[in-house]
Amino acid sequence: MKINELIAAPSELTDTAASKSAVVMMTRIRLARNLASHPFPGWAKEAQRRDVLGRCLQAVSSLTQMKRGLAVDTSDLSEQEKQILVERHLISRELCHGKGGSGIVISKDQSCSVMINEEDHLRIQVLRAGFQFKKVWNTINAIDSDLEEQVDYAFSPKLGYLTACPTNLGTAIRASTMMHLPALVISGQMEKVVRAVNQLGMAVRGLFGEGSDASGSIFQISNQTTLGESEEGIIKHLTGVLNTIIEQELNAREKLIEGEATKLYDKIGRAYGILQNGYLLNSGEAMNLLSLIRLGIDLGVFADSQRAVVDRLFIECQPGHIQHGNKKAAEAGQRDVLRGELLRTEFAKVPSPDFSNAAK
Amino acid sequence: MKINELIAAPSELTDTAASKSAVVMMTRIRLARNLASHPFPGWAKEAQRRDVLGRCLQAVSSLTQMKRGLAVDTSDLSEQEKQILVERHLISRELCHGKGGSGIVISKDQSCSVMINEEDHLRIQVLRAGFQFKKVWNTINAIDSDLEEQVDYAFSPKLGYLTACPTNLGTAIRASTMMHLPALVISGQMEKVVRAVNQLGMAVRGLFGEGSDASGSIFQISNQTTLGESEEGIIKHLTGVLNTIIEQELNAREKLIEGEATKLYDKIGRAYGILQNGYLLNSGEAMNLLSLIRLGIDLGVFADSQRAVVDRLFIECQPGHIQHGNKKAAEAGQRDVLRGELLRTEFAKVPSPDFSNAAK
Repeated sequence: MKINELIAAPSELTDTAASKSAVVMMTRIRLARNLASHPFPGWAKEAQRRDVLGRCLQAVSSLTQMKRGLAVDTSDLSEQEKQILVERHLISRELCHGKGGSGIVISKDQSCSVMINEEDHLRIQVLRAGFQFKKVWNTINAIDSDLEEQVDYAFSPKLGYLTACPTNLGTAIRASTMMHLPALVISGQMEKVVRAVNQLGMAVRGLFGEGSDASGSIFQISNQTTLGESEEGIIKHLTGVLNTIIEQELNAREKLIEGEATKLYDKIGRAYGILQNGYLLNSGEAMNLLSLIRLGIDLGVFADSQRAVVDRLFIECQPGHIQHGNKKAAEAGQRDVLRGELLRTEFAKVPSPDFSNAAK
Repeated sequence: MKINELIAAPSELTDTAASKSAVVMMTRIRLARNLASHPFPGWAKEAQRRDVLGRCLQAVSSLTQMKRGLAVDTSDLSEQEKQILVERHLISRELCHGKGGSGIVISKDQSCSVMINEEDHLRIQVLRAGFQFKKVWNTINAIDSDLEEQVDYAFSPKLGYLTACPTNLGTAIRASTMMHLPALVISGQMEKVVRAVNQLGMAVRGLFGEGSDASGSIFQISNQTTLGESEEGIIKHLTGVLNTIIEQELNAREKLIEGEATKLYDKIGRAYGILQNGYLLNSGEAMNLLSLIRLGIDLGVFADSQRAVVDRLFIECQPGHIQHGNKKAAEAGQRDVLRGELLRTEFAKVPSPDFSNAAK
């Protein structure tokens, strides 16, 4: 599979019609692994990095799960192609700006990806639309086991998997979900939720991880601790916290409908009107408007079939995807024009909101 | 004619389909007149005011132009009814809050109105949609002459008509137009224009006269001087200034289209989207959105037939009119809901903007 084929194919997250989950948009697990007797990527010399890259590219792309997928040296991708992979949550921003000698393997269905020589030799990731820790864990566990038959992992019986950064030591697992929490944001409760989640040992980040903002009221919530607990224990603990957040979001929605329904309808109606008629939309505003439409779908104001449209647009309205449709490199201002065009076209097909259906 | 009949009938300004004028929405002239040998209203005792009111009501309502119109003591109208007359530019805010013994006569077609015992004994006004000083002057001149045959005006051969406030002395004429100047506002040139107009001896005010704001980019421009020049001279001088402003507004529109067409389309498109889908609109926002639609009509983005709709809504979205549709007294917040309902209903019938028709 070539990169342009991969880009042309829908990402796992652009087809969420199957996912009826109102709050959890995506479940993701990544494992950090390193090869024994090889220096971590940050300390390795160019030749050592290339050696690891060669071994890992070969081993990972030979896995059943990765068959007919993409396997490339990062430096063979253009900036725009890398940007698109970041926007699909398949690789990290750090990998794009890292040293040479790094690589990427992505499964054909875009649900599994492995970064080679990012912070660790191997960063294995599996993601799925919706709230699906069991399925995701089974998949990544199988990939991890299969890979372990081919390469010798750096492992300490006492500490567990060794990683470049001590915060990942042990299970080296990061389990996370991408959550859509518009009612908690609108009602000003998000700060309180973040504080509580942090106290429970979980991290809350924006859409594209650490340091990114939460446009679209989308948050990534993940475990912080990797040591002293089994993978299953970590996922169970996280799931408990996530269920509480889901409940709080649903309560907040109920309160909005009870107390300030017209204010909410006004927000959703305006979002629809602007998406259908705007000519200049930056990506932050687009995300926030799409978020209100997604909330409208959850409330029954728009048909459930529109969820797949909105979730696809959350990704397609990112700068790299907007850029990609266009042959020439576009400036931010031109991208806002192209984004407006995309959204007008898509929303011309979305019927008007019907608030008489709003869930009470 | 009773007040409820008058309110139910369209105002002169709610039917501007005939007026193709893009910039001048309304032309208006008012004359201040006082009866000889009677103290000005502000100095008169209650009984003297009542005496003047009786004489004037009788004299004014007997005029041909006022036949079958409304003739009432102001105190016989409810607050809401007075508010509606203010919003139709038929009476002043000052009259509503004034002392007792004042009255109103309005012609059946709502183009002529006479306030009795406002600041002066008589404030005669004629208004017409569009830029029509000749027609308006001929009408008001005839009313003035006819009235002079019935009452004895306070007049000094040296000073002209005597008025309660010295700024009106002489011709006691105020000629004004209501101008729609969105491009001058958008391009930040309005302050400069106001300064220049003031230097030419003209006044610039908001939609409802002195001290009101210019929501909807609507300004009233009128003469300041009433002494030392004939009525025709004053109107000619004002017309010259207005023509310059029209030219500047049209130039500003051309520049917006040339330089920042997409920004302008974005503003107009969003305005349309919000009017079609908003649930809460205060009157200031509604005016500003309608202003953008009116600009769109001038640019050919919407059909010319929509001008009558927008000009009607400029008046119907004012608080008194919104309130009137509703039986119970509504608070500002409830009025915003009712305004949203009115605008959504009206704009559901307005076809989408077509920017391929935008005038260049």
